[in-house]
Amino acid sequence: MLWSIMGTIAAICTTVGFIPQIVRGVKTRELKDVSPMMLTLLLIGGSLWLVYGIHLKNPIIALANGFTLSFVIALLLLRILFKRTNAKT
Amino acid sequence: MLWSIMGTIAAICTTVGFIPQIVRGVKTRELKDVSPMMLTLLLIGGSLWLVYGIHLKNPIIALANGFTLSFVIALLLLRILFKRTNAKT
Repeated sequence: MLWSIMGTIAAICTTVGFIPQIVRGVKTRELKDVSPMMLTLLLIGGSLWLVYGIHLKNPIIALANGFTLSFVIALLLLRILFKRTNAKT
Repeated sequence: MLWSIMGTIAAICTTVGFIPQIVRGVKTRELKDVSPMMLTLLLIGGSLWLVYGIHLKNPIIALANGFTLSFVIALLLLRILFKRTNAKT
């Protein structure tokens, strides 16, 4: 029981961890220091984890990676958007 | 077997994903757009995942998170270092 709680807290931390990155990006409108290669690898890894979690019928793995994936996609899109917007100004 | 390979590739992607971020940071000597709160949450989450993986005797979870943790610690230290160095110049 204690271990399940620990696993859940671990999953929550590594998932919601991307929210402050999105907030920071939206505030500063700058994400150029964030590596696009990192985001791409997290996108591929997160997608595979999601499929793997669904296959294992493990809701923690599936849910955590589903959310992580959506945050990483948001960061990638924001990075592209800011790069274009900042290039114009 | 196929699913284990998929899980392993997923773990490798979400772990080595932090390497290009370290490389980018070292090259540009700038990590100010990278959220310190994200790194802190990934540090806490990665530590808990590592302990959870050791408890489950699951080498994939333990190893992947052990590496992720060391990369996240490296990023946190680099971010502090660059912030100090760049503040001086």
